[in-house]
Amino acid sequence: MSTQYSIGLDYGTNSVRALIVDVRNGREVGTAVWEYAHGTHGVILARDPNLARQHPADYLTGAEIVIKQALRQAKVKPAQIVGIGVDTTGSTPLPVDAAGRPLASDKRFAKNPAALAWLWKDHTGVAEAAEITALAKQIRPHYLAKCGGTYSSEWFFSKILHCLRTAPEVFAAAHTWVECADWIPAVLTGTDAPDQLTVGVCAAGHKAMYNSEWGGYPDAEFLGKLHPQLGELRARLRPQAQTIDRPVGRLTAEWAKRTGLPVGIPVAVGAFDAHLGGVGCGIAPGTLAKIIGTSTCDMMVVPVGTKLADIPGLCGIVNGSILPGYYGLEAGQSAVGDIFNWFVNYIKAGSHDELTKGAAKLKPGESGLLALDWNNGNRTILVDQRLTGLLLGQTLYTTPAEIYRALIEATAFGELTIINRLEEYGVPVEQIVNCGGIAEKNPVVMQIYADVTGRPMKVSRSAQTCALGSAIAGAVVAGVHPDYAAAQKAMTGVKAKVFTPNPKAHAVYRDLYALYRQLHDGFGLNSWNGNMHNVMKKLLEIRQAART
Amino acid sequence: MSTQYSIGLDYGTNSVRALIVDVRNGREVGTAVWEYAHGTHGVILARDPNLARQHPADYLTGAEIVIKQALRQAKVKPAQIVGIGVDTTGSTPLPVDAAGRPLASDKRFAKNPAALAWLWKDHTGVAEAAEITALAKQIRPHYLAKCGGTYSSEWFFSKILHCLRTAPEVFAAAHTWVECADWIPAVLTGTDAPDQLTVGVCAAGHKAMYNSEWGGYPDAEFLGKLHPQLGELRARLRPQAQTIDRPVGRLTAEWAKRTGLPVGIPVAVGAFDAHLGGVGCGIAPGTLAKIIGTSTCDMMVVPVGTKLADIPGLCGIVNGSILPGYYGLEAGQSAVGDIFNWFVNYIKAGSHDELTKGAAKLKPGESGLLALDWNNGNRTILVDQRLTGLLLGQTLYTTPAEIYRALIEATAFGELTIINRLEEYGVPVEQIVNCGGIAEKNPVVMQIYADVTGRPMKVSRSAQTCALGSAIAGAVVAGVHPDYAAAQKAMTGVKAKVFTPNPKAHAVYRDLYALYRQLHDGFGLNSWNGNMHNVMKKLLEIRQAART
Repeated sequence: MSTQYSIGLDYGTNSVRALIVDVRNGREVGTAVWEYAHGTHGVILARDPNLARQHPADYLTGAEIVIKQALRQAKVKPAQIVGIGVDTTGSTPLPVDAAGRPLASDKRFAKNPAALAWLWKDHTGVAEAAEITALAKQIRPHYLAKCGGTYSSEWFFSKILHCLRTAPEVFAAAHTWVECADWIPAVLTGTDAPDQLTVGVCAAGHKAMYNSEWGGYPDAEFLGKLHPQLGELRARLRPQAQTIDRPVGRLTAEWAKRTGLPVGIPVAVGAFDAHLGGVGCGIAPGTLAKIIGTSTCDMMVVPVGTKLADIPGLCGIVNGSILPGYYGLEAGQSAVGDIFNWFVNYIKAGSHDELTKGAAKLKPGESGLLALDWNNGNRTILVDQRLTGLLLGQTLYTTPAEIYRALIEATAFGELTIINRLEEYGVPVEQIVNCGGIAEKNPVVMQIYADVTGRPMKVSRSAQTCALGSAIAGAVVAGVHPDYAAAQKAMTGVKAKVFTPNPKAHAVYRDLYALYRQLHDGFGLNSWNGNMHNVMKKLLEIRQAART
Repeated sequence: MSTQYSIGLDYGTNSVRALIVDVRNGREVGTAVWEYAHGTHGVILARDPNLARQHPADYLTGAEIVIKQALRQAKVKPAQIVGIGVDTTGSTPLPVDAAGRPLASDKRFAKNPAALAWLWKDHTGVAEAAEITALAKQIRPHYLAKCGGTYSSEWFFSKILHCLRTAPEVFAAAHTWVECADWIPAVLTGTDAPDQLTVGVCAAGHKAMYNSEWGGYPDAEFLGKLHPQLGELRARLRPQAQTIDRPVGRLTAEWAKRTGLPVGIPVAVGAFDAHLGGVGCGIAPGTLAKIIGTSTCDMMVVPVGTKLADIPGLCGIVNGSILPGYYGLEAGQSAVGDIFNWFVNYIKAGSHDELTKGAAKLKPGESGLLALDWNNGNRTILVDQRLTGLLLGQTLYTTPAEIYRALIEATAFGELTIINRLEEYGVPVEQIVNCGGIAEKNPVVMQIYADVTGRPMKVSRSAQTCALGSAIAGAVVAGVHPDYAAAQKAMTGVKAKVFTPNPKAHAVYRDLYALYRQLHDGFGLNSWNGNMHNVMKKLLEIRQAART
């Protein structure tokens, strides 16, 4: 029997990737990436900095291009490909008509950004998120308990309600709304008609308050109180969400022809990029899988049946969302790579390489700077998109490399805040496996993370961990591994190089973290009380100590 | 009788200027500038960002160069020059030996930065300033009442005590310490021997706690408690300080030869650049004269005899320091142009021209940013050099022009805080006359200042107001005008263009200023209590309103 391969499709913020993987050992034999054609690096922007959309046509064009290119590179026979997995960003819902066709492709809405896919980082629904949170607090507090206590502007219903309020013609034309993660497997398998659609529990559970304990999505009465038409939409949402060990269907003849893949191979239930990245990292109880990209996602799993408290500020606790049979816990930072990219691309104070080199030469505390990592709001633990960046400690001699390092440190402090919250609520973090472009390429960032957190930082062996996770899903639904544990054992691993914390650096960062928490709580919590008079002085003391 | 001219010498942070002025009408007929040869743009720096020194040899080389050049440009006969005035930065003390020679020129100390002139913005004496403040609070509270309640690290005794503590060999070799403003007139007139030296009340009164009410400089017992050797220095300081209507002496034959000026013309008592700039601005009761350079100085005068409370946080209230017969009130910001220069020269996010153009296109509040103007500490009203910069409100789309505008606005908020403090303590500000490079060249800054403060901004007619003030002093000591009021009437004026506040912009800035004060007080005052949770949200509301 010839070697079997599976294919993972990974839809990121700027581009789509295909990865072809040997199902026996995770060896990556072919890959291709395509940047979406619309917008700025694939993201359609507007004067309102909250707006971030994508054109769904890019998703399909991209699938065809990257699958064909990856197959050519892999030099495997199409017949050797046994299954497909798909991961995407999210919550990235798009409105579709009664036939399942995206409204973005409807000429009537060609110029209407509300008809596009609402990318995860679109925050136009801030007011609606607050409204949903307020209503749920009042009449459905259990809805919030599983998603950190606050419904986010990044999520499904905030976006849909904002569309209903600001572009009612688009809402009216939409039969329903589909997560990108569900829409792509549906198109590939010809199951995109709204009554045939399979939805994954990952998107539904983490972003749309879906929970089988209360009968699926939020009830029509609740949604109807937000807006009667939103209440009516409830009946057009799917009754049951599925885990990623299930196929949504089989590749259609049309898509087999467009891509060169064999007709009829199974396509797994879709999930978010980060969650399948967690699978590709080898997520298991005690292992924090951390995807560091434009934003981060921090995931853990806890076996179903474990007594688990609701964890305030955590994005979600959902049965089966990462691995079947486990609660998936999701935390994250709304911007990490995006903050570094902002500094390089908008402030134009140097390239990532130059700034990283300069930052590497600095000792902890030496710059006297301290930043908050909130340029795109705070997802965990404050769950507040209306927070913004902060930098303090600047003198007349502060350099770009010092600021760049302070921004890296700020994201590390944000990470530590997440780890602390998990452990405070009884979820021990025994090891941390990082993946994503920054973990892969920037050892300075990884060392700072180790020094700030005081914990070793491991890095996933694969440079395309999300796509690898999707390929693992493809292998599982193809039946080549009995379950995810077996598939992960065969197909995942970490690199030999582990970043271990330097105790001296960690001691300095403990002091800096106390100041970070003071700013974090002072600017982030209504309940905090005190003053900030010590912050600048203490930073100067730390700077003085670092310099002598 | 042929036309008479006077010459002003203006020693700035980076360069020295000579200006030759028609004493009848203030017409400027010749000028020249020379950047000091030592250091970076004339300032000798070190790894310690608090250190800023100058080489006194540059002062003399510079005098010769700029006087000769200005004379050539003016095409006046040397015999037509009737008097000289001198202004310098300060407090910029330098150690001299028993003959009055600077220790910086002594080979033993050629490589010792402690033997140089300690430039006004040198903050190495932060600990000593705190020590002086603490001791004065305990045993000589009246010393502090005239200098804002806190003795600054920028001032005379902080620097000398720091030298004594950290470079005792330099302190031991110094017979005494002389302000740059006193040393240059002394050298020009051959009165630089320590027992012949004339000291100006401007430097002594504002920076060295000199007051005739308590017998001049702080008493030996007080200084001796800081360090016995500092107590011994007291006897080697001059007993009496003078106002600028007095000459310190007459130009020596040597300096007449070096410069081409007539031998024997009078040289006025020296004063700080800002104070003679105030004179050049036409300072008078009710007129706030504001010099905007690397830092700012805000000056007012109140007739001697007026009942005047001590004003907390004001740098000084000194009889005769700006104009004879008036209390001189000095406030200021530790960095203004220096903050803009930092952003351009260190962060390298664009040129002043580009950034100013970009900033001009923005509406108040549109960026969502708010900054504190503390990159070099806060001189008024907090009197705390251990404060640092702060910027908040950054998103992933914040541009350099937005930050540049926020930095301009921060300095305007700092200015408003000074105006408010003066008026709260019974010194009405009836008009504001600005001068200095930024007032001269940057109408965007001036308009923002008008919009933030809600007051018209006038600009001094002269582009070299400090040097003009010095030339006025030269004219007064030469006897061509009976007093300063007559000399100012003849020789000063403001430009026709007045920047008037836009009421809509001012309304937005009132809201932003409330947030500035919240940050100012929260980070600046130990006594403040509250939280900062509203700040980022309110900025987003203001941004939203500005954009729609």
